[in-house]
Amino acid sequence: MAHNAIITLTTDFGTQDGYVGAMKGVILSMNSKAVIVDITHEIDAHDVLSGAFTLKNSCQSFPESTIHLAVVDPGVGSTRKSILLQTEKYFFLGPDNGVFSFVTREGEQVGVFELTESKYFLTPLSDTFHGRDIFAPVAGYLSLGIDPSEFGPELHDYVRISLPSPIVSESGIEGHIIHIDRFGNLVTNIDTESVDAFRTRGDIRIDVGSIALKNIARSYSEVEAGSPLAIVGSTGFLEIAVNKGSARQKLVLKRGDPVRVEMIS
Amino acid sequence: MAHNAIITLTTDFGTQDGYVGAMKGVILSMNSKAVIVDITHEIDAHDVLSGAFTLKNSCQSFPESTIHLAVVDPGVGSTRKSILLQTEKYFFLGPDNGVFSFVTREGEQVGVFELTESKYFLTPLSDTFHGRDIFAPVAGYLSLGIDPSEFGPELHDYVRISLPSPIVSESGIEGHIIHIDRFGNLVTNIDTESVDAFRTRGDIRIDVGSIALKNIARSYSEVEAGSPLAIVGSTGFLEIAVNKGSARQKLVLKRGDPVRVEMIS
Amino acid sequence: MAHNAIITLTTDFGTQDGYVGAMKGVILSMNSKAVIVDITHEIDAHDVLSGAFTLKNSCQSFPESTIHLAVVDPGVGSTRKSILLQTEKYFFLGPDNGVFSFVTREGEQVGVFELTESKYFLTPLSDTFHGRDIFAPVAGYLSLGIDPSEFGPELHDYVRISLPSPIVSESGIEGHIIHIDRFGNLVTNIDTESVDAFRTRGDIRIDVGSIALKNIARSYSEVEAGSPLAIVGSTGFLEIAVNKGSARQKLVLKRGDPVRVEMIS
Repeated sequence: MAHNAIITLTTDFGTQDGYVGAMKGVILSMNSKAVIVDITHEIDAHDVLSGAFTLKNSCQSFPESTIHLAVVDPGVGSTRKSILLQTEKYFFLGPDNGVFSFVTREGEQVGVFELTESKYFLTPLSDTFHGRDIFAPVAGYLSLGIDPSEFGPELHDYVRISLPSPIVSESGIEGHIIHIDRFGNLVTNIDTESVDAFRTRGDIRIDVGSIALKNIARSYSEVEAGSPLAIVGSTGFLEIAVNKGSARQKLVLKRGDPVRVEMIS
Repeated sequence: MAHNAIITLTTDFGTQDGYVGAMKGVILSMNSKAVIVDITHEIDAHDVLSGAFTLKNSCQSFPESTIHLAVVDPGVGSTRKSILLQTEKYFFLGPDNGVFSFVTREGEQVGVFELTESKYFLTPLSDTFHGRDIFAPVAGYLSLGIDPSEFGPELHDYVRISLPSPIVSESGIEGHIIHIDRFGNLVTNIDTESVDAFRTRGDIRIDVGSIALKNIARSYSEVEAGSPLAIVGSTGFLEIAVNKGSARQKLVLKRGDPVRVEMIS
Repeated sequence: MAHNAIITLTTDFGTQDGYVGAMKGVILSMNSKAVIVDITHEIDAHDVLSGAFTLKNSCQSFPESTIHLAVVDPGVGSTRKSILLQTEKYFFLGPDNGVFSFVTREGEQVGVFELTESKYFLTPLSDTFHGRDIFAPVAGYLSLGIDPSEFGPELHDYVRISLPSPIVSESGIEGHIIHIDRFGNLVTNIDTESVDAFRTRGDIRIDVGSIALKNIARSYSEVEAGSPLAIVGSTGFLEIAVNKGSARQKLVLKRGDPVRVEMIS
């Protein structure tokens, strides 16, 4: 671990209150050479699933040994554990509530440690702001080369939540909208592999809201400005978009609404 | 002062206009090794009290010698002074309008310097953007080791505004909500020491909006999800919160509304 | 090019989705010493003109050799080119759609290169997120000292859009509001040189919405709190503001509304 380690932050703290600033101050107090990068602080308050989804989509772009902090923590101060998850490529620090559900690959060897060694925490330790008092200082110490096992005992498991799965049948896939991004793109839980399995068998149709789409476009510009399209987004999931516009506004849809892929030949 | 000095920014500039980017460019033009950290840029426009409160809550987490810039500056271009405040641990740069009211400890020795040496300012100097033209370059030079006294004459005092104090009587404390955070937590101006003085004498009750609370919880999870609670927040003040919810929304309260702590036995 | 090169980001990606985090991860994967600075990520979605205007106002504050990325890219995946623009002071990377229209000075020598060398791109290359897959890695390689000509062939020209010009006649200037900032300041397209040409001839009057202003103030504080004023803003354009208030709210105006400077003597 080089001293100029990268530490990323994914939280639901917003940027108006100075909570994030306090966390950064603590990290830099431990390691003034740490490179701190914001992923986002605008996860909806207490929305662990959304935090897990956003972390998954961004964390893989970072170099090996990056330390990813994720603090979406409705259970702060309760009996939920604080953990360090070590994967083959990264370190993850945060509450054991499912926020790391999607960051490992199938079959990957991981180590999980409970953060119990209070000598690595701030004193006094609050029961309302573990981002500042536990996760930030532990990130700082970890970036200085402290071994993961020093922070507490190894655990056998950690909390994982499942991304609501699409229902796949002979005739098609029934999924739904799991995220809407800043551009109004509707991100579904239908992964590209599932769609491709149907496309190789014949023609498909995608039903979403009041419209039906017959193709999966390669780029937004394949349709006219203002027209809807289906596309495999940068996250690897099927998205419904509008070229140079907002699918959310045009189709008047929201998170949770259904999206169906159907065989038509 | 090491060249990789930490410089924090607290402003009401927002993040949509590029004003903050311009300030960072100026700082890095003076000292390319400076480590710039955002505390927040979302102080309500011209709300000096809110800027002072947020700066107080975050600045203490940073390591010694950090330079804190705070530019909430409704009087830019008027006769208000530009100052450098040197405390035992930090440097503060900003307008002399009260934004540094809460950053010193009782009885702490401080130095105050008026920024008048225009050779450390940008040329031409605007009358509308001292964040870019005065405070950013002075922060850059200060981080390179220029002595505080080089920037202008020492002053005997600087502007301090008072946080509206709670009224303490034999029967209780009458305070009010001074800040509402992103989670809808209602931060009061009642400090934990005042509350503790009453708690040692007997049972208390906290009246806020239409509800009464009989305990001060240690963590949000002491009550059921959706229920209100009183708690000492991470800022050291009494807060009214809702476990896994928003007290602002549930109790329909706003900044300035009263909160009372009363003896009941 | 030093390895601790500064790389700025101006996008319409917002900060809620982790897109910006992914770009930063890619840059740091190429060059872990790069200093990444956000200008803004809150350009209105697909608003190239607004991105160009904001970039112009901020980029000049950065030191020589800074690499400015600007990704406001409604045509991503279409036939629009990806370019590297080299000016006397800076490097600019982004789509060839006009976002760099205002960053060069009159008569400045520039080089323009089309980004075609896919060995500098991420694999697989998406058709929806060139910020992450093309511009971020090219910025990383460029910051390591790769010569601009290595990324693809030199072009003879690049797309420039014009800032809607004010109409100047013998009797005055007819301009309009091109930007409204976080404070509600109304930024016009009337540059200070044009106004000064009239002011040297005699008295002027500025008509905006339902009011007329007879002076151009040097600072906000020349009028009473709550009163409107005209001022040359930090961007070099005429602005309509309200001292310690919001001109947008007080005058109920919007982008595109007319502003007239008239000779009255």
